Amino acid sequence: MGSFEFLNSLAILHAAQLVTLAGAKRPRVGAEMSDLAIIRDGGMRINDGKIDSVGSSDEIEKNADDAEIVDADGQVILPGFVDAHAHPVFAGDRLDDFERRTRGETYEQIAAAGGGIWSTVEKTRAASEIDLFEQAKKHASWFLKCGKTTVEAKSGYGLTGDDELKILRVIRRLNDETPLEFVPTFLGAHAIPHEDRQSPERYVDLVINEMLPRVANEKLAEFCDVFCEQGYFDIEQSREISTAAKKLGLKLRIHADQLSNSGGAKLAGELKATTADHLEKTEDQGIAAMKSGGVQPVLLPGSVYALGSTCYPRAREMIEAGLAVVIATDFNPGSSPSPSMLMMLSLACRQMKMSPAEAISASTINAAHSLGRGDKIGSLEPGKFANFSIFDCKDYRELAYWFGFSQADSIYVRGERVCSGGLRPSPKN
Amino acid sequence: MGSFEFLNSLAILHAAQLVTLAGAKRPRVGAEMSDLAIIRDGGMRINDGKIDSVGSSDEIEKNADDAEIVDADGQVILPGFVDAHAHPVFAGDRLDDFERRTRGETYEQIAAAGGGIWSTVEKTRAASEIDLFEQAKKHASWFLKCGKTTVEAKSGYGLTGDDELKILRVIRRLNDETPLEFVPTFLGAHAIPHEDRQSPERYVDLVINEMLPRVANEKLAEFCDVFCEQGYFDIEQSREISTAAKKLGLKLRIHADQLSNSGGAKLAGELKATTADHLEKTEDQGIAAMKSGGVQPVLLPGSVYALGSTCYPRAREMIEAGLAVVIATDFNPGSSPSPSMLMMLSLACRQMKMSPAEAISASTINAAHSLGRGDKIGSLEPGKFANFSIFDCKDYRELAYWFGFSQADSIYVRGERVCSGGLRPSPKN
Repeated sequence: MGSFEFLNSLAILHAAQLVTLAGAKRPRVGAEMSDLAIIRDGGMRINDGKIDSVGSSDEIEKNADDAEIVDADGQVILPGFVDAHAHPVFAGDRLDDFERRTRGETYEQIAAAGGGIWSTVEKTRAASEIDLFEQAKKHASWFLKCGKTTVEAKSGYGLTGDDELKILRVIRRLNDETPLEFVPTFLGAHAIPHEDRQSPERYVDLVINEMLPRVANEKLAEFCDVFCEQGYFDIEQSREISTAAKKLGLKLRIHADQLSNSGGAKLAGELKATTADHLEKTEDQGIAAMKSGGVQPVLLPGSVYALGSTCYPRAREMIEAGLAVVIATDFNPGSSPSPSMLMMLSLACRQMKMSPAEAISASTINAAHSLGRGDKIGSLEPGKFANFSIFDCKDYRELAYWFGFSQADSIYVRGERVCSGGLRPSPKN
Repeated sequence: MGSFEFLNSLAILHAAQLVTLAGAKRPRVGAEMSDLAIIRDGGMRINDGKIDSVGSSDEIEKNADDAEIVDADGQVILPGFVDAHAHPVFAGDRLDDFERRTRGETYEQIAAAGGGIWSTVEKTRAASEIDLFEQAKKHASWFLKCGKTTVEAKSGYGLTGDDELKILRVIRRLNDETPLEFVPTFLGAHAIPHEDRQSPERYVDLVINEMLPRVANEKLAEFCDVFCEQGYFDIEQSREISTAAKKLGLKLRIHADQLSNSGGAKLAGELKATTADHLEKTEDQGIAAMKSGGVQPVLLPGSVYALGSTCYPRAREMIEAGLAVVIATDFNPGSSPSPSMLMMLSLACRQMKMSPAEAISASTINAAHSLGRGDKIGSLEPGKFANFSIFDCKDYRELAYWFGFSQADSIYVRGERVCSGGLRPSPKN
């Protein structure tokens, strides 16, 4: 966000629904997730990139002074989506894996054919920082088009000190050179690299004693994440890495219980991690541990869908347990090649029985809190950044109801319109 | 399409992949579905709305003469999608039903609360022809944005003679006043209306003796469709209606085996219907009947997804049996509120194990044949209409791989660009 200037004064008027999500200064839990604090025929006054006031269009218009007027024309306005789990920096794609998977090949067969995460690691290692940046910039443009204005960004396809730092520097540059805000997470412990398959402890040592200090020293990440799973990093290794990260001032996220109920959510609770992510296999004990540790669950229905699985995480039980649920895209080239939060809303409602309102709380204000930014973004309230999207519909529930396409009309970051004009009929038509 | 003029001369150059689907003049079956006849660095010469020649960019450029040059700039070009099963004309939406469904309410509870198909019938009956047209025109604009250039359009939310004809007249007007081609299907037998719940035979009689003759007389439909299912129209009633329609010169489509394996596919085979649609519950006998009757299966993964089910039709078995499989959106307000064929490609590949190439054959050339237009659309070959889309990617497989958003850059109908300029970063960014 560094090089952008946001010094305008705007009055946005006549949103059919201004979905403010205004309320308490903490993540929403339980029934609070259903209260979107919607203002009908709503408006906002924006100064210098921040929201000055929110209210009925009449009130806002009265105090518009010399602000530029934007007529939302009876459309729906929502806070910019906050994507709290994404892997946007990688080289290449996994099209061959995708095609093999449709033929029924297993993960093992795909890996043997040179696919899987390792193929992305090899391409990412081979790529220059500039090439990685150019590809990630394309992903960033998709994110904006999809109405996301803040995106968590993990490293994890380098798996050497130099390559992990290269990715984190690309993330820093994305932050500087695109309108999006990226929140960097160090995920050196994404997988054991091939060269250390026989000596995983050597790699854990490298993460703890070489990578983490460099990352902390260069202030390249706010969070540390670990893929906690048998065959990746077991509970003990995950605890070691996370504890070391915490000592260096990094906050914690954990990939937990995606493939098996192996104790990842419990570890997150024990470590008081900010989030535990995935949780497809988490059961009662894990839910209780997250509750007692103040952990936010980050649910990633896109990867369940794209892997052709039907084992979605237990969103309803987590909401009923009082957890501040987040949904995110898990954007990555292997298991979730979708940049779209609208798609995740659809999956949350259709497959996880979340209501449209709960899904929207989970992808805006709760996601913002999970990134330590609940005071700045995620809702439309005075003092917050004016990050929002205008959608060409009348009812916020339409965003989850119609699926597979976007009704986004324009996207604003800090009061500046950064995206506009969806694919339209040519004028003569 | 009536009022549009298409008299230009274009040379499209430099498609990274020009996906022509050129080949035999019949639907593709078996391994043929995997052969997309792609030309790398391909181009097309277009005159008066039709394709004049197809080849390498070099060849096309040599013979471009005074044609307007369009540089596809290394993107992918595909024939316009042909959506062979859609219900685009209805009033209102089913947002309340959608929300109730996320709360776990059953179809029966939703119907008791005033939802379900009957609520759409009531709103559609109450709507004026002009209001129905305006709403359907919005749906048509979504279809175009999604890269569809031909869409089958069913009646079926009227369920009286006058209301069914009102819908079919709206479809005719859509055909005249939008760039899309709509293929009209009479679906008076979509459900038994409430007023005839106790006397379904009275309604069957009405369909056969009042509605069908009026539809045929006014030439308002090319196809007749029946919802063949217990509680809707049983096998005998479906046979009666279809046979009457056939005598009046209408071709046949049948909603078959969606909720139970009740013999719909077998009936389609017996009647030599053009298509049998849905087929979630169809087993071996139904597949064999379709094969022997020359019936094309139209698979509708969007409604399986949106109903939260996991019972997808047996696409692989149908392909292996030599059936000319079609995939379509089933666009409708209840069970499949998605206009997007890209979403259907994703579902076909992720959930039904179709390959990306098979899914594209199923949504273009095979769909065109199922609408009796295999000689005019569905592939990019000399003599066919120049209906195509340019997508901002390098490999056609990306269309099914990335999901939940669209990379469509521009859409052409009969050589005219009818849609362009996806949501873009504002110039300063």
